[in-house]
Amino acid sequence: MCEASAYLIQDGKEELILENVDELHREGDVIKMINLFGDQKALEARIRMISFVDNKIVLEKP
Amino acid sequence: MCEASAYLIQDGKEELILENVDELHREGDVIKMINLFGDQKALEARIRMISFVDNKIVLEKP
Repeated sequence: MCEASAYLIQDGKEELILENVDELHREGDVIKMINLFGDQKALEARIRMISFVDNKIVLEKP
Repeated sequence: MCEASAYLIQDGKEELILENVDELHREGDVIKMINLFGDQKALEARIRMISFVDNKIVLEKP
């Protein structure tokens, strides 16, 4: 399974915001994510990095 | 293995630009990717979507 965990950088620290992310979509300045269980999260953010080895998404505030 | 294939939307079609992507970094308007074999690709683009189920990255021109 290749689902990823999504983190948002807040005050210099990575805060976990959603686990088991299946899909990520960018629409304008908004990142929308949906996970294995159908849970969704949308927030104004930019992608800093994604690791397909560590199954990790790192977002930051715009 | 969770490596992804990266596509760039050109003229409405998805064009394969890098396979087996391990990591993606955004630096300003530039997306940098590195794959399993150490091949690198950097281009001015934005992420449209990422599927961790289909191991697919879709980029578009800004």
